[in-house]
Amino acid sequence: MTAEALRRSLETTDNPFNSTDEVMSWIARRNKEVDVRIRRIPFSEMRGWHFDEPTGNLVHDTGRFFSVVGLDVYTNTGTVSRWMQPILNQPEVGFLGVLCRDIDGVAYFLLQAKIEPGNVNCVQLSPTLQATRSNYMCAHGGRPPAYLEIFRNATRDRTILDQLQSEQGARFLRKRNRNMVIRLDGDIDVGEDFRWLTLGQIKELVRRDNVVNMDTRTVLSGLRVDDGGTDGINSIDDILHQLSRLKSKFELQVEKIGLRDVKEWVVGSDEIARPDHRFFRVIGVDVTIANREVSTWRQPLVEPMQEGICVLFAKRIRGKMHYLLQAKVECGNFDVVELAPTIQCLTGPYLNPIGYRPTYLAEFLDGSCVERTIVDVMQSEEGGRFYREQNRNVVCEVNDAVPDDQPENFVWMTLGQMREFLRFNNYLNIQVRSLISML
Amino acid sequence: MTAEALRRSLETTDNPFNSTDEVMSWIARRNKEVDVRIRRIPFSEMRGWHFDEPTGNLVHDTGRFFSVVGLDVYTNTGTVSRWMQPILNQPEVGFLGVLCRDIDGVAYFLLQAKIEPGNVNCVQLSPTLQATRSNYMCAHGGRPPAYLEIFRNATRDRTILDQLQSEQGARFLRKRNRNMVIRLDGDIDVGEDFRWLTLGQIKELVRRDNVVNMDTRTVLSGLRVDDGGTDGINSIDDILHQLSRLKSKFELQVEKIGLRDVKEWVVGSDEIARPDHRFFRVIGVDVTIANREVSTWRQPLVEPMQEGICVLFAKRIRGKMHYLLQAKVECGNFDVVELAPTIQCLTGPYLNPIGYRPTYLAEFLDGSCVERTIVDVMQSEEGGRFYREQNRNVVCEVNDAVPDDQPENFVWMTLGQMREFLRFNNYLNIQVRSLISML
Repeated sequence: MTAEALRRSLETTDNPFNSTDEVMSWIARRNKEVDVRIRRIPFSEMRGWHFDEPTGNLVHDTGRFFSVVGLDVYTNTGTVSRWMQPILNQPEVGFLGVLCRDIDGVAYFLLQAKIEPGNVNCVQLSPTLQATRSNYMCAHGGRPPAYLEIFRNATRDRTILDQLQSEQGARFLRKRNRNMVIRLDGDIDVGEDFRWLTLGQIKELVRRDNVVNMDTRTVLSGLRVDDGGTDGINSIDDILHQLSRLKSKFELQVEKIGLRDVKEWVVGSDEIARPDHRFFRVIGVDVTIANREVSTWRQPLVEPMQEGICVLFAKRIRGKMHYLLQAKVECGNFDVVELAPTIQCLTGPYLNPIGYRPTYLAEFLDGSCVERTIVDVMQSEEGGRFYREQNRNVVCEVNDAVPDDQPENFVWMTLGQMREFLRFNNYLNIQVRSLISML
Repeated sequence: MTAEALRRSLETTDNPFNSTDEVMSWIARRNKEVDVRIRRIPFSEMRGWHFDEPTGNLVHDTGRFFSVVGLDVYTNTGTVSRWMQPILNQPEVGFLGVLCRDIDGVAYFLLQAKIEPGNVNCVQLSPTLQATRSNYMCAHGGRPPAYLEIFRNATRDRTILDQLQSEQGARFLRKRNRNMVIRLDGDIDVGEDFRWLTLGQIKELVRRDNVVNMDTRTVLSGLRVDDGGTDGINSIDDILHQLSRLKSKFELQVEKIGLRDVKEWVVGSDEIARPDHRFFRVIGVDVTIANREVSTWRQPLVEPMQEGICVLFAKRIRGKMHYLLQAKVECGNFDVVELAPTIQCLTGPYLNPIGYRPTYLAEFLDGSCVERTIVDVMQSEEGGRFYREQNRNVVCEVNDAVPDDQPENFVWMTLGQMREFLRFNNYLNIQVRSLISML
């Protein structure tokens, strides 16, 4: 795929194959056609899953897919230095793959209208292929997912993007997916669940509430389309040195423990939760999806206890737009610290927070530091694991209330620099990648 | 530090302050002056250490420094898919720091003649500062190490290098050190254990047996001195994509377990070893170092059961020198796969190997693929943890018996490309960094 075809794709919003309006009505139609029923059930009725002995971990009978285990966390940073919590454990790397084609010099990307049980609205635009290793190794005995072999056998000259990127560090233990964009030479048959879209269209759709799913957003965040180089007020080496310093200063020790041994959390008959109902809970659901055929299964889902917010500050410094990232320690992080949005408030309430004061949250909420809102939209977390979790995603230009000089756990970066760090994996967390996909 | 001062340092071998001959006689003198006695003792006499209950792990009484724990390993690559082994656990990031100065436009680096109990010869050239977190937080109540504060408080403009790099993946569980080079503006007092050397001198010394220690070698491998850019027959993105593919294909699951539960290994009264004496053993030693003052302590050390070899192949391809790296899974790796030398044979014997055939080992040993030997030298592993472990380090130019096209777990890279990956941490393993330091 040429840089020119990507650039033209970004500029193209009038797609001759599917206009953006057509895509929206197609999604609406898919939403109507399917009947998705999610019913909470007690764990004892969650066929295919059981609590393992002696750990008390919630596991699939095959031992595959994911499990809910306990984590004992120690860190020397933040307001709480020691805690235990349940966490999703899925020690395998899945595929998040998007196919693309050059049609008349413009790049088109193949997205899928996919139903996921946890979605607020059922259908969202997902990558061409979205499959965990257990899926594609057919742990539940089904057919391999469509287009899998194209991604598994992709040759070097067809690979536009192939990155290992992290998932939510507060919910997943060191989970990563392989984010891919693969170029096709000719045409292929696409089913009625698929549509070819331009980057410009996807950028339009990602600025609407809950249309483009998290997996699509993370893949697209890595695509480099003329980002204006990697110069900024901090050099790439400056930022790398800052991260080395923090990763050496901040200790993060996590030990997997049995779910049974997690203090302050109770495994009840139909939820794994804290008595004070803070943070999140794990529930069991029965999922029935009916359209042409009926499929039904049971699984655990994570339900957040509040709505969260992620805000990325932008500011023109020395003539170039910079974004303010926060070096954040999260217990499931692959490498202690990842770069997160300026404000990331997902595990506690952001309106009337108790006991902690995220930097810049007050100034953002009262608007005193905001010059201009670039995007302000609700986005869903991955609907295969999270139950109706949507978070407010904001990018805004800020004034001099946010200084150019920042403390050691914040850093100003240009878009080109963020993409450079995306190339080398595990530097930018999933929340900031979601925001980058909207830029 | 200007690029010009680094380049001139590389070209300078006649140091007006200390000639290379003077450095060698200074090391010889230090070796004579100190009397190092290492005596094997049973674990029951190893004061300050005990076997913890109920795990059976060998730990320091303070809970700090390092411990010997068990590891349960599963991987889907290599000849053995499941095994258990003891491993060194040290969940803290230490400093490996070198000070440098510009004197008349030439960069000089401050190295230390340091005694380490496990060294084959006692004294080797180590970084200015070599300190674990337990050291510098003064877990044993001593004085903080010299120059510590310079490294802890280094500002951005003085930081030439600040990388987090891994240690031996077969022996350490996800251990990393912070590799730093910091520029001084003026002069400082240096004790008699320190000398200012040019890069050219260090490159001379690193080609001699057991003079420059592993910690110095890993720091110096990251220094960029006009490496001719990052172009090669594979682009940086090609290599990143290849690594993503392998990290997704190769599974590595490691679980920390109690040392007591490690099958096929026996914790005896004076060694932790396999009955067949393969791989390595952990012993207890009493160390006495006498020169001006006497210091004595007891600690565990790891003793390898054979001499190992690391070979890096070089080949001129399309007019540019390339080096052949191997993507290798080791159980203590931070991220599944790290790039290793072409041949890395450390955990089993390389002469008369039984049951496995490392790629290219036979062709190297019989000389049929070797065009020219660039360096062939014995190098020690870190003497603070390893007992008289030295391995043969070779860089050689190869002929067309080693093809330009390689299987998926090998990749040709230029020196400039290797340094680019060093910037982003955790890509090149310690064995290949040792070899790069000799280029």
